[in-house]
Amino acid sequence: MNKLVRNGLEPVPFTKVTIEDHFWAPRIRINREHTIPFQYQKCKETGRIDAFKLNWKPGMEPVPHIFWDSDVAKWIEAASYSLATHPDHDLERLLDEVIDLVASAQQPDGYLNIYFTVVEPEKRWTDLRDAHELYCAGHLIEAGVAHYAATGKRKLLDVVCRYADYIDTVFGPEENKKKGYCGHPEIELALVKLYRVTGEERYLKLSKFFVDERGKEPNYFEEEKKKYGPGYFEELFKTFGNLKEYNQSHKPVREQDKAVGHAVRAMYLYCAMADLAKETGDESLKIACERLWENVHKKNMYITGGIGSTAKHEGFTFDYDLPNETAYAETCAAIGLVFWNHRMLQLDCSGKYADALERALYNGVISGISLDGTKFFYENPLASLGNVHRKEWFDVSCCPPNLARLLASLGQYIYSQNEKEVAVHLYIQGSVNLDIQGKSILLKQKTNYPWDGNILIDLEMEQPSTFALKLRIPGWARQATVKINGEVFDIKQHLEKNYVKIERKWNNHDQVELVFPMPIERVYTNPNVRYNRNCVAIQRGPLVYCLEGADNPEPLYRISLPKNEVLHSHFDEQLLGGVVKITGKAVFYNDFDWDGELYRTSLPAPQQFEFTAIPYYAWDNRKPGQMLVWIPEI
Amino acid sequence: MNKLVRNGLEPVPFTKVTIEDHFWAPRIRINREHTIPFQYQKCKETGRIDAFKLNWKPGMEPVPHIFWDSDVAKWIEAASYSLATHPDHDLERLLDEVIDLVASAQQPDGYLNIYFTVVEPEKRWTDLRDAHELYCAGHLIEAGVAHYAATGKRKLLDVVCRYADYIDTVFGPEENKKKGYCGHPEIELALVKLYRVTGEERYLKLSKFFVDERGKEPNYFEEEKKKYGPGYFEELFKTFGNLKEYNQSHKPVREQDKAVGHAVRAMYLYCAMADLAKETGDESLKIACERLWENVHKKNMYITGGIGSTAKHEGFTFDYDLPNETAYAETCAAIGLVFWNHRMLQLDCSGKYADALERALYNGVISGISLDGTKFFYENPLASLGNVHRKEWFDVSCCPPNLARLLASLGQYIYSQNEKEVAVHLYIQGSVNLDIQGKSILLKQKTNYPWDGNILIDLEMEQPSTFALKLRIPGWARQATVKINGEVFDIKQHLEKNYVKIERKWNNHDQVELVFPMPIERVYTNPNVRYNRNCVAIQRGPLVYCLEGADNPEPLYRISLPKNEVLHSHFDEQLLGGVVKITGKAVFYNDFDWDGELYRTSLPAPQQFEFTAIPYYAWDNRKPGQMLVWIPEI
Repeated sequence: MNKLVRNGLEPVPFTKVTIEDHFWAPRIRINREHTIPFQYQKCKETGRIDAFKLNWKPGMEPVPHIFWDSDVAKWIEAASYSLATHPDHDLERLLDEVIDLVASAQQPDGYLNIYFTVVEPEKRWTDLRDAHELYCAGHLIEAGVAHYAATGKRKLLDVVCRYADYIDTVFGPEENKKKGYCGHPEIELALVKLYRVTGEERYLKLSKFFVDERGKEPNYFEEEKKKYGPGYFEELFKTFGNLKEYNQSHKPVREQDKAVGHAVRAMYLYCAMADLAKETGDESLKIACERLWENVHKKNMYITGGIGSTAKHEGFTFDYDLPNETAYAETCAAIGLVFWNHRMLQLDCSGKYADALERALYNGVISGISLDGTKFFYENPLASLGNVHRKEWFDVSCCPPNLARLLASLGQYIYSQNEKEVAVHLYIQGSVNLDIQGKSILLKQKTNYPWDGNILIDLEMEQPSTFALKLRIPGWARQATVKINGEVFDIKQHLEKNYVKIERKWNNHDQVELVFPMPIERVYTNPNVRYNRNCVAIQRGPLVYCLEGADNPEPLYRISLPKNEVLHSHFDEQLLGGVVKITGKAVFYNDFDWDGELYRTSLPAPQQFEFTAIPYYAWDNRKPGQMLVWIPEI
Repeated sequence: MNKLVRNGLEPVPFTKVTIEDHFWAPRIRINREHTIPFQYQKCKETGRIDAFKLNWKPGMEPVPHIFWDSDVAKWIEAASYSLATHPDHDLERLLDEVIDLVASAQQPDGYLNIYFTVVEPEKRWTDLRDAHELYCAGHLIEAGVAHYAATGKRKLLDVVCRYADYIDTVFGPEENKKKGYCGHPEIELALVKLYRVTGEERYLKLSKFFVDERGKEPNYFEEEKKKYGPGYFEELFKTFGNLKEYNQSHKPVREQDKAVGHAVRAMYLYCAMADLAKETGDESLKIACERLWENVHKKNMYITGGIGSTAKHEGFTFDYDLPNETAYAETCAAIGLVFWNHRMLQLDCSGKYADALERALYNGVISGISLDGTKFFYENPLASLGNVHRKEWFDVSCCPPNLARLLASLGQYIYSQNEKEVAVHLYIQGSVNLDIQGKSILLKQKTNYPWDGNILIDLEMEQPSTFALKLRIPGWARQATVKINGEVFDIKQHLEKNYVKIERKWNNHDQVELVFPMPIERVYTNPNVRYNRNCVAIQRGPLVYCLEGADNPEPLYRISLPKNEVLHSHFDEQLLGGVVKITGKAVFYNDFDWDGELYRTSLPAPQQFEFTAIPYYAWDNRKPGQMLVWIPEI
């Protein structure tokens, strides 16, 4: 179970981490108390749970959907994580029940899929492109791994091992096996997880097979359609343009250099590529990931960490095409960006990965869930005319349980370690139990992050211990200072890829004090992004701000921000669960002197007013209204 | 034939007008020499002409399309107009041939429609909403009227009278008749034309019936679908949202107060409403037109006179929603705007109608055709990334022949008159033969419009004549001066709705000199248009300018225009057939100091360069490139 550290760092599992802050801890509590039970309820109500009873017969409504397995699997995963950090007898029993039901749906040969067992059993493995069959398998595998890690119970793990063993008999390089892979990557990263928890090399090999096979010519999906006819989403997909790009099968993964197609598909694929690079030491996959990373983060990412510019195919369009009002920026894609950057960070402890992870996490990910934990955004635009609101559930409901599993396992993103180094990626008040060279060390963080950038790290240990503490200096922190036991530590001399590396013999109660001043910053976009011409966004620390109709005169698009106005920040504990709001003077362009005309030769008259900006993640939690991130600057 | 003037003014027919300028005359020549023959060729090649032979049988390709009749009809109309001002024996013979063919397709009962004669004869009049059956009839009627007016030949006129007579037996208020109307207005305005040329009141009554019936509850189209099942475009229309708004049957026309739905449908309907207001004196229709006019022109019109913001349903979206890059602004809709404003102008000689007509004509209409007359825009966006180019033809090819018929009959838009007044709406070098109280007067215009605003009007007559000459002062002309025989005339004292009214006894060779200074103007948009925040457009006289990649560094969206830069205009006879170009200093935002980053806290660095702007109508006539009308102003 305890695998050797091969390259770089390993994440410290969330089971060893406590989160005791005012920002994330309440979210995790709400996730546990409301979101997870609520999502169970939704899965139950909509028939997703009972579908595993396999008693659907032709003519019955609803027809189990090809995605349903994955929704339940993600719920199992989220509930398992939650149990691990917060034991709950009732939830454990409920989880056992659901797992029993899932297990009961497994076929004698190991196969486990609702739709292709009861609705179209004759079509098993004939529509890999559209039917999400291996995708659902991947989520079941992740659920099995999570449940085992959280509870030590093997039931679901054994089920998914049998399923993976069966899949391994169907797919592979051997002549009698299919050379296919899934239209929606997911099983690849799941198999690496299964390999890590079981040590079974076959799972790693199968993951590598799926990744290596992708994009080879002749294209598997084209051959599949010739052989079996149109796929499940044929009509929809016809409108997508380049379908090979849509599912990233347009070329072998090592040759891919631009993010294309469906954004969540891309993220899950890149995650698997990074996993395989780490587990197999395959440098070519790491290089491909780095190339794709540059393209995603420097040409195709919203300031919120959102990715995927168009609703049409839920994905990437072309470099620098980042419309605000019509941004898709699916919550799941931002979550995928977190997953991917987290993996990159273990390959290469570089601040750029943690910066991107943090950017998505504090902005485009948690914007996806309402403050009360019961409503969700699928799309996360950066401007709204007032008609965009969170919903309780979706027919295709990938985002809500994806948020639940992320929040329930948030602890895993904070620290990494190996035998000689401990890296702190995120600043979240709480603690971590580290095991370094067999010695137990308790690292405590005290901070009010993200509302200020002061962090006190306290190390508790029985005996002195020598290791390097690598502390991330966030990309947004321009005047960071570090003190060790009250003495200034020279950051510049010890900076490695934006981590300050403090290598020394640590004693019990050694303290490291980090100060990241958090001025309000005006952020500008590369001029190749045509939508943000002469516009500014407001950022403070990791948080991107927005204007919302609840605080400002509408229409918001009549507001501009003068270049030289001083902006003020102020923590308002009554506002949106307690946020730092930003205020200042802006102008609102009047229309009352236009006499109803549409065009004229004199400029509109500006009227000064006091604006209030709130963190982007918190928008749409009050009365419905407009929202704006990029503000024209004058 | 010579009807009494009832209210307001009557347009002076184009047959009495000559155009002898450097702007329009070459376009009309190209239209005659290239566009009209080219379009015949296209109609011939694609089977549209021969389809009137009615020899299509099931299984044959291509299947005649429900629109085809209208394409040929518009070609007949254009060719007829052309013949009238420029006799051409070959064209006349060709026209006779085509008309013989069309006539031969008329059924014994008078019916005349290719599709519903040969493809689905059993479905006659069962899909008024989608199948364009009465729309095609309308265009045939317009063709018949035009051919008769141009040549005096009655053949097609008689055919369409028989068809109209037959239609009159099918539709009407009488109990045994259908209470339907066409999903695409057109026949309404055509029937008024037919009434005007024949004096037959039944046609006027039928037009009024169609207009009055529209939008009554129960909605005819809903009843039709219940009775006959899905329409021709059922699948497409499903995506359009409010289908009743799409075809303006959402409420009775007199209650309509916002332009909704398909823009061309709206324009043709409003034309008919204005026609009926004029012919019947129905004030309620005039009021409805005025209300709709305000909404279209003050909340839904591009600065180019383009209307219809979205490609989705080729139409209006919501007030102030005027995106530039994705503007639909169909050529036909801008032409429809010309038609409608021309009609409004006869009801009420107000400069606002002529301004709108001129705006569309000089910008969003002629942008629809290439300088060589052979390629066409269906859509006329106000910004392009370089991927928008004119095409020779379209499957749905309404715009090319619509342009051809407009250009061939352009003379009719210049003057109106009644017994006491002559109005000059447009300034185009040439002349008009007027008949005022039985006296013949030759009015000559000498001008280089639109390149400068100096106009010399010379009146030739045998005997002195007393009448009012109403000369339009364009809305853009802020310091107009008028001289009569060299003496300054006080405009302010004689201004009626932006027409200066000179009422006097005119003598032979009296001269009126108009001077409209044409400074380069910076135009701004009402701040409710969110797309043009802090942007400026350049206009000079009636012409809207744009930046094009051929003259300026790309990407154009990295350009901004400083507020205080002086702009220069200069006539360049080598450029685009001779245009006034506008130059000045602008800035281009560099990206080379961005180090590939997407976001940063310092502004992009501006680099000064000399920009060149060209008239919007002339874009995309050189190498493919980007285009931009609204430029950020700094």
